[in-house]
Amino acid sequence: MEVQWIAGGVCAAKGFKANGIHCGIRKRAGKKDLALILADHPCDAAAVYTRNKVYGAPITVTRSHLTDGKARACLCNSGNANTCNADGVDIANAMCDALARTAGVNASDVIIASTGVIGQPLPLEPIVSGMPALVAGITPDPAGAQAAAEAIMTTDTRDKQTALVIQIEGTPVTIGAMCKGSGMIAPNMATMLCFITTDADIDSALLRDALTTAVDATFNRVIVDGDTSTNDMVSIMASGVSGQCRIVSKGPNYDLFVEGLTIALERLAREVARDGEGATKLLTVNVNGSPDNETARAIARSVTASPLVKTAVFGSDANVGRVLCAIGYAPGDFNVDNIAISIASDAGELPVCERRVTLAFSEEAALTILKRPEIVINIDMNQGEGASTAWGCDLTYEYVHINGDYRS
Amino acid sequence: MEVQWIAGGVCAAKGFKANGIHCGIRKRAGKKDLALILADHPCDAAAVYTRNKVYGAPITVTRSHLTDGKARACLCNSGNANTCNADGVDIANAMCDALARTAGVNASDVIIASTGVIGQPLPLEPIVSGMPALVAGITPDPAGAQAAAEAIMTTDTRDKQTALVIQIEGTPVTIGAMCKGSGMIAPNMATMLCFITTDADIDSALLRDALTTAVDATFNRVIVDGDTSTNDMVSIMASGVSGQCRIVSKGPNYDLFVEGLTIALERLAREVARDGEGATKLLTVNVNGSPDNETARAIARSVTASPLVKTAVFGSDANVGRVLCAIGYAPGDFNVDNIAISIASDAGELPVCERRVTLAFSEEAALTILKRPEIVINIDMNQGEGASTAWGCDLTYEYVHINGDYRS
Repeated sequence: MEVQWIAGGVCAAKGFKANGIHCGIRKRAGKKDLALILADHPCDAAAVYTRNKVYGAPITVTRSHLTDGKARACLCNSGNANTCNADGVDIANAMCDALARTAGVNASDVIIASTGVIGQPLPLEPIVSGMPALVAGITPDPAGAQAAAEAIMTTDTRDKQTALVIQIEGTPVTIGAMCKGSGMIAPNMATMLCFITTDADIDSALLRDALTTAVDATFNRVIVDGDTSTNDMVSIMASGVSGQCRIVSKGPNYDLFVEGLTIALERLAREVARDGEGATKLLTVNVNGSPDNETARAIARSVTASPLVKTAVFGSDANVGRVLCAIGYAPGDFNVDNIAISIASDAGELPVCERRVTLAFSEEAALTILKRPEIVINIDMNQGEGASTAWGCDLTYEYVHINGDYRS
Repeated sequence: MEVQWIAGGVCAAKGFKANGIHCGIRKRAGKKDLALILADHPCDAAAVYTRNKVYGAPITVTRSHLTDGKARACLCNSGNANTCNADGVDIANAMCDALARTAGVNASDVIIASTGVIGQPLPLEPIVSGMPALVAGITPDPAGAQAAAEAIMTTDTRDKQTALVIQIEGTPVTIGAMCKGSGMIAPNMATMLCFITTDADIDSALLRDALTTAVDATFNRVIVDGDTSTNDMVSIMASGVSGQCRIVSKGPNYDLFVEGLTIALERLAREVARDGEGATKLLTVNVNGSPDNETARAIARSVTASPLVKTAVFGSDANVGRVLCAIGYAPGDFNVDNIAISIASDAGELPVCERRVTLAFSEEAALTILKRPEIVINIDMNQGEGASTAWGCDLTYEYVHINGDYRS
């Protein structure tokens, strides 16, 4: 599919404004901590959520608000996850109420999210105090999307936005998104938080199916540290003002939308992996020749998640044995006798294993490949048609530094 | 059960001699790399192995040698895992042959093991050249056990030995063991390599059952980094010369033996966790009040394995949210609403969570507890009688250092 990449993030699609401010949840003055996306009119909306049994209060509230498939705003704070607190649901509801009063929307049309430390009370006061400035500053300009994208960051080292245009029956349809990732990234879900806007006109039930399909192919294949957050959520609002014929059933137009959405989310998923806590390298693991896709996925996940593979990637060490080891303990029924492995980057590709036996490769050639910022491990199981890809990153001193000293 | 702890490791039980030398597999001159345990006579023997689908050539050979339930020697090199090499089985067989010629034992009575880097050819020459000195130096003295325990170490920072005496119908029965651990530690199996000797008189089929039971309660509950090695093995040889009435069926005497064996292996399992690669702290996670033992085990594993919990333990950070998060993504069917958590060490115990809500505890008190070298996290699920324990360690800069730079 041909897509046109454009600027503007969550403000790229028609019908949306955004803003982000520092309201005071975080102590550091410069760091924005409250983000808002506001639609001009109520939208078809959907979300997918963490599968962690312990989930944040905002998840409870958002799930309730989206039962009617409609939303008009996304409100998200960083610096505190509002999770495992006695008053969590009350606080989340009060946040929605504060936005409703100030922006003139229904509280039940608010998608609410929080990210940051778990188990510490989230003070309502700075959010309520900051609301007028947050709402007053909303704009459809890229600057609004930028401010919002910055306000949801936690240990992310850079904001993560994307936007693209696809054609549906000759009508341009725009999909934009912002997300945050970094730590606690694992299927399912990977992204912690992603907010998507589109001017597509699509029924909310189909929107939910499209979102589930696209997330499964993208964010759910990102692994940073194997932990699955309590607050992960991907939400989408569709303003319906693109002018394309409304999608009310599955068919070619629905498929086009899913494809465009998947392309947008894959770009963000790779950014999440690349910006994993402490990461210096993006690791892509491709598995082919597996008995089936599910097994390929399990193998790709096992290799991408292995701390020993991740530290080897950090050290630019072509440690084939660790890759074979991580394949070998992946769940599933598969044969390991004909495994072939190559390592690759923009500096070239090098076969390092055939028929499960490590080849006598040039260490110098391997080092040249592994010193690059984007590393690919290609695995061919040589026994079927199953294939899958997972994205991850290396495990570094900085990961330990960030997480040994996060709360303080 | 009352046990008497004694010195002597694998030489403590009657009927065994041991030695360890530097033969030249490793480049560093001082580091021993070849270990031998030799029984005076053929023993009842058993072993349990890694469940990794990619497993080392020594596993293939040992499995074949133990089909008759008999063995007389354990031969183990460090510095090279002899795994994923084209000639691996030939090399492992040649090692057994070399020992057989020199020591006058049957090659098929040799338990063979290798540990170290995967996927690099293991040179036979230094092993064959070193064999006369290895065999000539065997001794039943503790020095022999010490030399053998040192020769199986890889990134272990200290050797790991234990020995104890139990009473079976008034007759003293000794169980001794050495093991190596450090990286790649995860259920199932945890230990990489453990060699056990006993002078108990017990049928080899029962010996295997006893070993499986004891390993399941000990080594299989240790988690260092979630990776499961290709070469893990726990073997046991029983010389039968204690003079106690031979155990030929399950009953009180068999139960006594299993209990003694479990106590010995638990001590080593804790040492493996404490000496996890780069570890500065031993982490024990106790789960009670779970719907059943299996669920308790899954929860204990999830918390012990979480990189975010491990880095928090390293940073002495009472990050309750990360513990709750790791409980929440454990597999199984359980309720999370009534979780209570306390943290403990020899400096005291502090409740930090009740009914899934983080308590307002003293950060100073938490820090005092978490600064200690042995940390305990007690989790009460408050919904049943299931209980389990897992042992692990913190995740540190040193782990990254060791594994980012292991092969070179």
